[in-house]
Parts: sequence; C-alpha cells; structure tokens
Amino acid sequence: MRIGIDIMGGDNAPETTIDGVILASKKVEKDTTIVLFGDEKKIEERLKEKNITLDNIEIVHTDEVIAMGDSPTQAFTKKPNSSIVVGFDKLKKGEIEGFASAGSTGAMMVGCILIIKQIEGVLRPTIATPLPTFDGNIMYLLDVGLNIDCKPEVLEQYGLIGSIYAECQGVKSPKIALLNIGEEEEKGNAVTKATHQLMKDSTQYNFIGNIESKRIFTGEVDVVVCDGFTGNIVLKTAEGLYPFLAKSKELSETEFVKGFNYEIAGGTPVLGINSTVIIGHGCSSALAIQNMILQTEKNVKVKLVEKIKNAFKNGKN
Amino acid sequence: MRIGIDIMGGDNAPETTIDGVILASKKVEKDTTIVLFGDEKKIEERLKEKNITLDNIEIVHTDEVIAMGDSPTQAFTKKPNSSIVVGFDKLKKGEIEGFASAGSTGAMMVGCILIIKQIEGVLRPTIATPLPTFDGNIMYLLDVGLNIDCKPEVLEQYGLIGSIYAECQGVKSPKIALLNIGEEEEKGNAVTKATHQLMKDSTQYNFIGNIESKRIFTGEVDVVVCDGFTGNIVLKTAEGLYPFLAKSKELSETEFVKGFNYEIAGGTPVLGINSTVIIGHGCSSALAIQNMILQTEKNVKVKLVEKIKNAFKNGKN
Repeated sequence: MRIGIDIMGGDNAPETTIDGVILASKKVEKDTTIVLFGDEKKIEERLKEKNITLDNIEIVHTDEVIAMGDSPTQAFTKKPNSSIVVGFDKLKKGEIEGFASAGSTGAMMVGCILIIKQIEGVLRPTIATPLPTFDGNIMYLLDVGLNIDCKPEVLEQYGLIGSIYAECQGVKSPKIALLNIGEEEEKGNAVTKATHQLMKDSTQYNFIGNIESKRIFTGEVDVVVCDGFTGNIVLKTAEGLYPFLAKSKELSETEFVKGFNYEIAGGTPVLGINSTVIIGHGCSSALAIQNMILQTEKNVKVKLVEKIKNAFKNGKN
Repeated sequence: MRIGIDIMGGDNAPETTIDGVILASKKVEKDTTIVLFGDEKKIEERLKEKNITLDNIEIVHTDEVIAMGDSPTQAFTKKPNSSIVVGFDKLKKGEIEGFASAGSTGAMMVGCILIIKQIEGVLRPTIATPLPTFDGNIMYLLDVGLNIDCKPEVLEQYGLIGSIYAECQGVKSPKIALLNIGEEEEKGNAVTKATHQLMKDSTQYNFIGNIESKRIFTGEVDVVVCDGFTGNIVLKTAEGLYPFLAKSKELSETEFVKGFNYEIAGGTPVLGINSTVIIGHGCSSALAIQNMILQTEKNVKVKLVEKIKNAFKNGKN
C-alpha cells in the first residue's frame, strides 16, 4: 500500500510533519510505503539531523506551498507544484491510495470535491469526528462542519455513511441516531422532523431514533447524525468545556477526557468521495501526524471507500 | 406586591411546593404576598404538619389539576378551576403581578400565549436560561427551546429582549453575541448569516458579533442568542457532561459546576409577553421552588415586562 502525506502542511511544518512520519514509519504495516510530498532537501536535512534512515518512505519533491492566505480554489491552478496539488494528482491517478494533510483545509476540500469527486449517488460528502463516551468507547458524530444547511435527504445518507464508517472502525451493527431536541419522532425543527421519517424507513442501517444531546456521551449509540451547523456547535461546546475538565487531575486521567485529545485520531476523514483523504489540524503535533498517517492507512486497508461506493451502488440510495 | 404560585404543579406537589413557599416566605420583601393556587385543605394540612403559620401568604382554593396527560390547549376549557387556569385568570386581571408553576409546561405556554399574549411588536416570545461562566459569572442563553425554527427577524429581537433581561439581572451594558460556527460575519447557516446583518445594524443593544460555542463559557459575553433548536442542543450537551464534572470533588465545588444546578434559578422566565411568568422544572425541589418564587418577585420588582414593552414601543422594532 502507498499512502501520501503533505509534508509542507501544518503550523509547524515541515519539521513536525517529518517527525510524525518518523514515528509512523515504525508503526505502519510492512508493505506500506509512506509517500512524502514536499521539499526534498528539507526532508533529507531533517532526517539527517535526526540521524535516521527510513526504508519505507519515498519522496516526491514539490517546490510550492499553499499558504493560509491563498485562495483554495485558485491554488490548484496557480500553484500546480504545491504539495497538496501534486498529492491530489497522484491520488487521482491511483499512484497513492490515500492522502493526508494538516495544511489548508480549504485546498484539501477543493481537491476532494473537484479532483477526487463525490461517489455517484452521494448527495454531499461529509466529515465525521470520533468523540469519547463515558463507558470508554467512541461514538462518531457527523457532519461536523462541512455541510452547514442540510436537506433531510442528505442527512438520511449520513446515517448510511456513518454506519459504514463506524463498522470500518470495528463497531458491529452500529446504532445510528439522529441528534434532536426530543426523543419522540414528532419533535424537532423542520429538517430533523422530515429526516426522522426518511431514516426510519431505511433498510441499510440500524436507525434507533432521535437522541438528545445530553445522551450522546453515554455510549448508547455509535453514530450521531446532524447537520454541520449543529455538529460544530456540539463539538465546540464540548471543546469549550475541555480546559475546565482538564483542570482536574482526577478527571484528566480518565479515558473520557483523554478521548477529547485531537491527537488520538489525528485528523478527520472526508467521507463520500472516491478516495481516502484525511484532513489534520493545523496545529498538529508529531503524534497527531503519526495518527493521521495511521488512520489513512487503516481506512485504505479496511476498504472504507469501496464499501461506501458499494452501498450507494446496491442500495436504494 | 402579590405574586402567584401554582401549588399543584410539579412531580412532588403539593408537599414540595408548599415547602418551597415556606422557604420563600422568609426571604421575600415585607410588602410581598405569595398567593397560593391549589387545594386549600392540603395546603393547611402541610402547614399544620410543619407547625408553621405564615402571615404573608394567601390561598386561592382550586379543585382541579392539569395532569401531564391532559392536552394543554383543552385544559383551559375543560379544567377551568385548575390551579394554572385560575392563576392565569388572576394574572390577566391584575390581581397578581407574576405567576410561577413547576407544572405542565404546555399549559403554562398556552396561558402565556393565549391569555397573557405577547407584547405588541414582539414577533415571538422566548425562554432564556442562565448558564455559569468560568470567571464565576452568569451568561444568558436564549432561546432554549420555545422557538425551534427562527427567522432572522425573530433572532434579532432576541438580542434586544436578552439585553433588557440581562440588565434587569444587574448586568451593566450587556454584551450580546450571536451563536455561530465562526466569528467572521460571513460564517454560518442561512439564518445566522442573515441574522448577523440585522443585529449589527441594531442601535438598541450592544451587539459584539458572532461567538463560537467553545467560547460561551469564558465570560466574555453576557447574552448568547440562538434559535430554540441550537439553544436546546447547547444546554443539553452541557447537561450531558454535568454528571461527569460532578464526579470530581475538586470541580464540583467550583462556582462553575454549581452554576449548572437548575435549583439556583428555579425556573425559566417567558420573555416578550405582557406579564411576569416563570416556568419551573417538573422535578423541582423545595429550594428550586423557593428560587422560582424569588425570581418571580425580582422580575416584577425590576419591571422587566414594562422595560421590554417600552423598548418595543419606542424602538425601531
């Protein structure tokens, strides 16, 4: 397997990204090659500085970088030799099977939508995030900010995409719930009410009904579906409380609080597109980069993209 | 001042509500009379049992109770002698200046909308909730569940209503923010984007812009405006994390965690209607009932309703 990583993306690139590659290179499978997109000289300098030789990496030299100020859309024409643009090109051609970056989120999304494109039948791609539960497990929340205003048909599909994603992460028969302000099916806003009706008719996943936000951390469901506005609000409300939680030594040692650490997942997969793409945090540490690479490898290995493609080919969707 | 309380409302009524009245009767102002709507015999029995005589209460005997299963709308015609219906009648006639109940929320809302009616110029009444901030202060979140799908014009008014409410609670020049998924004015869903444009033109309150949910607990703003769906999601996400926070002895002693205790406020005011109405939690303890009564007294005393009326009479709204 060959997976690509943008070495130039992230606040502390390329040093931190290279350090992340060094960490990941010891953990990937034997037949995995990490393909590094970035400034070859800088990569080699850093490896030399660390006195490390890696035999499971490959470098694709690029001499441009998409900066935070660059227009994401224009970057693809104006900076054709940037690490992200070259990465997407290789991904499109099948020369790598997955691509990850902690660089410009905007440019990554443009690459996903315009170069890799969404899977036939998928109305809108989505981004999901794992969140800890009190029982020491994980639940997946989607969408968390890609699709702000969602139609019911889009949310209904997120049930299926979320179900396949959770299964690929090892959850058996994932329980899918719709985030709402009441458990009864007639509760909610116009969109959630209509979505509930669509989801309850789905035969492709195990929809267990509405869930209120006070119960999403209990571990009773595996996937929570909502629009990107609501998902972002939930995520950031929890994020806002995190510094307070972390103040307590007692609580900060729990799996639950540790589960909020973004470094564990390392990045957010873009789901519903024709290849494996992971977007990392701009502020990624070497550990986060390692896990972003390992997540990319895992999603390729478990054939997440193929499974979503098949579901949309065979299903009613 | 005469303020009314529904003695029959709440899971543990009438015992707990009477106990709450006993607590409150020692704390209200000298010229305040608490008017009790409920079963006179039961009230007198409880007072006798407690060996207490109160000289600042008055009992209005009612012999019907609106049960959880009753249709809130029909209750007003089918149970004319229930504590809530009689309470609203006296409120409408001006025989009491405020009314509070921990009983049927539905029936309370029907009373607010159909009997008391909204203030001229107010598009939709709202309910607000106080939430603690890390600096030991309070911020007010509205709407928290009354108006699920809100138009921008409704949200814009919530800025004004929230500003007056916060001022009445002692906040000087309250800072008003719009809950959104980004700080920049072009961020958000269709409703928040349009609302931002309306709010920034307001001359009646101090709009400081968008706020992300991760910053609502920092104490940097006094009022956070959102639709009832989003407000409910935020409130319940925090509520869902509360049992976990409370596990830590260290944290549970902080003002911040204690601030999540619903008993402190004792109830939610319905704002934008022609009188003072407070709705308590069904599971209210005696302490919560005490504070519901004290909140009713305070809102009457500071002339909250008159101030909202004046703002909508004089303002551009």
